[in-house]
Amino acid sequence: MRQSMIDMVYQIQDEICKALQSIDGVDYRQDEWTREEGGGGRSRVFSGGKVFEKAGVNVSVVHGTLSPQAAQSMGGGHELEGKDLDFFATGVSLVLHPHNPMAPTVHANYRYFERGEGEKEGSWWFGGGADLTPSYLFEDDAKHFHQVLKNACDQHEVADYPTYKKWCDDYFHIIHRGERRGLGGIFFDDLNSASKEDCFKFVTECAHSFLPSYLPLLEKRKDMPFTDEQKEWQQLRRGRYVEFNLVYDRGTKFGLTTNGRIESILMSLPLTSRWEYCHEVVPGSQEDLLSQVLKEPRDWLID
Amino acid sequence: MRQSMIDMVYQIQDEICKALQSIDGVDYRQDEWTREEGGGGRSRVFSGGKVFEKAGVNVSVVHGTLSPQAAQSMGGGHELEGKDLDFFATGVSLVLHPHNPMAPTVHANYRYFERGEGEKEGSWWFGGGADLTPSYLFEDDAKHFHQVLKNACDQHEVADYPTYKKWCDDYFHIIHRGERRGLGGIFFDDLNSASKEDCFKFVTECAHSFLPSYLPLLEKRKDMPFTDEQKEWQQLRRGRYVEFNLVYDRGTKFGLTTNGRIESILMSLPLTSRWEYCHEVVPGSQEDLLSQVLKEPRDWLID
Repeated sequence: MRQSMIDMVYQIQDEICKALQSIDGVDYRQDEWTREEGGGGRSRVFSGGKVFEKAGVNVSVVHGTLSPQAAQSMGGGHELEGKDLDFFATGVSLVLHPHNPMAPTVHANYRYFERGEGEKEGSWWFGGGADLTPSYLFEDDAKHFHQVLKNACDQHEVADYPTYKKWCDDYFHIIHRGERRGLGGIFFDDLNSASKEDCFKFVTECAHSFLPSYLPLLEKRKDMPFTDEQKEWQQLRRGRYVEFNLVYDRGTKFGLTTNGRIESILMSLPLTSRWEYCHEVVPGSQEDLLSQVLKEPRDWLID
Repeated sequence: MRQSMIDMVYQIQDEICKALQSIDGVDYRQDEWTREEGGGGRSRVFSGGKVFEKAGVNVSVVHGTLSPQAAQSMGGGHELEGKDLDFFATGVSLVLHPHNPMAPTVHANYRYFERGEGEKEGSWWFGGGADLTPSYLFEDDAKHFHQVLKNACDQHEVADYPTYKKWCDDYFHIIHRGERRGLGGIFFDDLNSASKEDCFKFVTECAHSFLPSYLPLLEKRKDMPFTDEQKEWQQLRRGRYVEFNLVYDRGTKFGLTTNGRIESILMSLPLTSRWEYCHEVVPGSQEDLLSQVLKEPRDWLID
């Protein structure tokens, strides 16, 4: 399974980066890196192109020994004992921040984890998901994005879209703001309720669903006209993105406390962001509309 | 003591805001707020003036009952029992971010804390400090800032500049970057090793030292010429400021998890900031010089 997943994430990185390159009109920068404690990865970052302010697609394949502290924050849910602190993890992770405030930021991550030999029950699991973070609400975009993810879930008995949709809303929660990071998508972790093979098939399908879920939205929005005020609102929303990632995101925390490659972990942060004291949206404005939805997540596929 | 400290922090807020107003050429915005669980505060924020990109001076006077979790992260060091979860806290906190990249960001905070009745040993303490965060290194500025703080410490038996200087370097540590937030200053907490009165006198002297420690630097730097590249470097440094405050700062974490007033807590964040993937400074440049000092804190008053 380790090798199957490694092959899959590298292939997905290639596929996605090829598509982004053709849209953005520039080459990505590639860094292959190794981790002192074991393993490494391949980061690819776009910047300075016509479409993306900053966009990163990262693969990592790491192994080593967890600190008990890191192990606790890790999930998997089985008892910690002796060599179970050994771990193996591989995954692909991406965050795309387009220039145009009408084009949504998107994040996706698919990963496989083993503790010890990864044979015992509960010692291996998959996790992942994808979520959409626009600055302006286009309901059709949210519906399309969710529909593609639901279709992927519906084809696999191990997956359940409504559960994963709610999990996503609950996870990407900026608690101190009382708002969600974005319009959600799916999120799942500790997935091991079917065979490794069946879980892998589901995760592979999700990963292949990324481009169809997002590219149509990007194509529709990337060249829309926008005002300086709309760009500024985007910058404020980017600030909230930073708040979530640095205060709450488990992956970021895990990376920062386990001597991960900082530049790859913080690749998710936007190029620029903004914090205005007591910023308030105009009631009834487009900005207000988005804010309302972030306060009360909607079910996009029911009507 | 509660009332003496309250009077002092409001007076200091007035004094500092009056000085900032005359430099910045604009009025501050004032918000008086109350906290559902008890107490409130007065926030004053400058923005849109000639000197400050964003500058906030906040007073809070709060009381209530700590969650056991909040109590643990609280300090004071005495055993938790029954009504000791009752707390009272008051303090003044400021963060000033000037426009000009040659003019340093500065932070100061002085606070008084009680648990329960605040009479038992270890059930009351003072804390605070001030630290300087420039984007460019001017050694004279660092020396002046530290010298004023050392002078304040030297006049009070309860205080020890070398200890507080090191504490500051240790506290404002962006661990995942291997660098300090800035050039330090002083930091102390759990201060109760003399009488309340003597501790209060020291803290009051520190608070009154703020303007003399910082204003001369601001006057010297606020109108210096700078390039777009220097402004961009400032924005990258602002990003590091955000990283420290959201990932490590105990005051910020405490505020975010105890239902504090979010806008006052996050007032410390800069108006704008920037994250570039794998940014590297040119060896030997002014940016490199600052980076080196952040990696290895210096003793500014020894030569």
